[in-house]
Amino acid sequence: MIYAAVMGYGTIGSGVVKVIEGHHDYISKKTGKDIRVKYILDLREFPGDPYEDLIVHDVNVIMDDPEIDIVVETMGGTKPAYDFVKRALLAGKSVCTSNKALVAAYGPELLKIAEKRNANFLFEASVGGGIPIIRPLNTCLTADKIIGIQGILNGTTNYILTRMEDEGLGFEEVLKDAQALGYAEKDPTADVDGFDSCRKIAILSSLACGKTVDYRHIYTEGIRLITSEDFLYARAMGRSIKLIASMYTDGYDTHAIVAPMMVEKSDPLYSVRDVFNAIKVTGDVVDDIMFYGKGAGSLPTSSAVVADVIDAAKHIGINLKVFWNDEELQLCGIEEQKRKFFVRVKNSAKQAAAEQFEVEEFIDAGVEDETAFVTAPMTEMAFAAAVGSLPGVIGRIRMC
Amino acid sequence: MIYAAVMGYGTIGSGVVKVIEGHHDYISKKTGKDIRVKYILDLREFPGDPYEDLIVHDVNVIMDDPEIDIVVETMGGTKPAYDFVKRALLAGKSVCTSNKALVAAYGPELLKIAEKRNANFLFEASVGGGIPIIRPLNTCLTADKIIGIQGILNGTTNYILTRMEDEGLGFEEVLKDAQALGYAEKDPTADVDGFDSCRKIAILSSLACGKTVDYRHIYTEGIRLITSEDFLYARAMGRSIKLIASMYTDGYDTHAIVAPMMVEKSDPLYSVRDVFNAIKVTGDVVDDIMFYGKGAGSLPTSSAVVADVIDAAKHIGINLKVFWNDEELQLCGIEEQKRKFFVRVKNSAKQAAAEQFEVEEFIDAGVEDETAFVTAPMTEMAFAAAVGSLPGVIGRIRMC
Repeated sequence: MIYAAVMGYGTIGSGVVKVIEGHHDYISKKTGKDIRVKYILDLREFPGDPYEDLIVHDVNVIMDDPEIDIVVETMGGTKPAYDFVKRALLAGKSVCTSNKALVAAYGPELLKIAEKRNANFLFEASVGGGIPIIRPLNTCLTADKIIGIQGILNGTTNYILTRMEDEGLGFEEVLKDAQALGYAEKDPTADVDGFDSCRKIAILSSLACGKTVDYRHIYTEGIRLITSEDFLYARAMGRSIKLIASMYTDGYDTHAIVAPMMVEKSDPLYSVRDVFNAIKVTGDVVDDIMFYGKGAGSLPTSSAVVADVIDAAKHIGINLKVFWNDEELQLCGIEEQKRKFFVRVKNSAKQAAAEQFEVEEFIDAGVEDETAFVTAPMTEMAFAAAVGSLPGVIGRIRMC
Repeated sequence: MIYAAVMGYGTIGSGVVKVIEGHHDYISKKTGKDIRVKYILDLREFPGDPYEDLIVHDVNVIMDDPEIDIVVETMGGTKPAYDFVKRALLAGKSVCTSNKALVAAYGPELLKIAEKRNANFLFEASVGGGIPIIRPLNTCLTADKIIGIQGILNGTTNYILTRMEDEGLGFEEVLKDAQALGYAEKDPTADVDGFDSCRKIAILSSLACGKTVDYRHIYTEGIRLITSEDFLYARAMGRSIKLIASMYTDGYDTHAIVAPMMVEKSDPLYSVRDVFNAIKVTGDVVDDIMFYGKGAGSLPTSSAVVADVIDAAKHIGINLKVFWNDEELQLCGIEEQKRKFFVRVKNSAKQAAAEQFEVEEFIDAGVEDETAFVTAPMTEMAFAAAVGSLPGVIGRIRMC
């Protein structure tokens, strides 16, 4: 018998308990591991809950119980999650977490402690919810040098953008509706301003490069400024607008960014709609592969957490090497990134645009009094300079 | 130092050697495993090849060398692959193979030998080329009961269907062109008649259910009868035609089939084009997830084989449990499968169709002298009976 404790009995924590206990016999048959939840840590009481007897309020009960081999952290945030997780690892317990904020901020430190204690720090659910991506990066793409990652890593923003595209609505209107439907938080900042995607691409980039990518150094732009007119242009170009989190490396220079981008139809990310997430990984041997699925939700996320719990159960006393050390990977400044830009300008600025930019094409989407154009590939710095001196700019979106 | 031998120096085998040797330092840094190719078994000589010194013609050199811990089998077919692989496993060596015919025919027996000898039999590359799917099924979806799998598992047929769709051409014409371009074999039967997909879905179904699905019991239909007119109807319905390999289980009854199907736009398989493969897996916890990438080719396939080699190197003397035993899973007969059907009939048969079928809709795609309809969901048996007594049937395709 292997005992686990779950810290945080919210949406994900309760799903995890339900899956470990509800699938107990199946998991045992499939994997040969007999896993039980012994404690659930939460400040609240849960009268009538089928697992209310397992609730404890004192974290020391878990930390001091030598029978607990695996601790699941589904509290979110870094306080007190960081302290609790660190204590568990120092006590030689393995930790499985869905907490991207924790992993992005303290991943390499916690991995190092796990290694020293012959335990494991696993975080499959921290990126892409139920989509297997962390373990495939660690165990499947081992022969590949990872050249790039491009992902739609946030379901809320993708849902909002999909509805704007389908229904021709503005951002604020769809956001309100998404909040009413429970697809967006009351305070939607972490999602719509890209902070959630930023932490996730930092985690993936670190695993791809083997060093630590500091999420605070990733240029991050959200979707608040995207308008229904932008989607008219996207359609005219056969593209869609997605919040893309990406990194690219040639082994020397590494670039990362989170921003809305114009994605072309032939890109597999184009057809990722609604709350779905997808992560495209480019390896120097395997070329492009993509992982797709539900990036959030109690059960999908629990699927990933419990898979980690099973992996931890299979490796008690055996540390699984993770390619991520605490040396910081220096990202190139945003100004060096090079790509095409889509720019909307007032009709009166068309002539000036043609003079100041190498324009690849002008796009007419039937929007009154304005036109738009796509530039040749240029650096962010060159673009910023050129667009700064152009009058009548209405908006700009990067091309993917 | 861990030594591997590669049996079969063709497209995939040579890619494997290139990746193990060419990425030696990188793999060693990333995984801590120092792996070298010691022998390459092939009947031919390769004068001038950078690895010609490693070529041997006698399999006993490999079998009798206790330094060889890992054998890569990239010969294809089952003779002599089966004998060689069995001997290697009995000698306690791990085997990594890309050979779906071998895995579909002898998987459970070879897994059992590997288990007894504390070695591993790994076959990530046997399905989906470079796409990680076998290891994710074994190590990521462990908390899920797999309810269904639907895949586009053959790049050649998907390439042919994509070109028929885009260019309005007939099957024979595109096949000839695909052969000229090297996308289809001179003898295209294994691909276009669905036998390749059939073996692959048998492997995936076995891993999903934990028992052995005999590929010979899977109803298999290829794409030879698909016409350019079929694509006119598909377009009129907002669908595409794909060769779908699928299995579905409710835990009691299990169904499997390989056949061309009409896939709707909202299905992530809809946008899988050209030589790409994709596998959609439905778990009772995670819901739908999809894996996408290049299903063939020297380097993508080598990526998967070498990932297996690295996994084998990490687990020398430790058998990785695989959920697949030799008990045969009894598939339900095809006649019990239930779905909608798309049927093309001569205009004169429209009235009879409306009487003999519960028609959901008639579709007009502007094809002279004929019409088409979609039935309500019905069993294969009921459909066969009804369509058999309907005059003027031109063709039928299953709805996905």
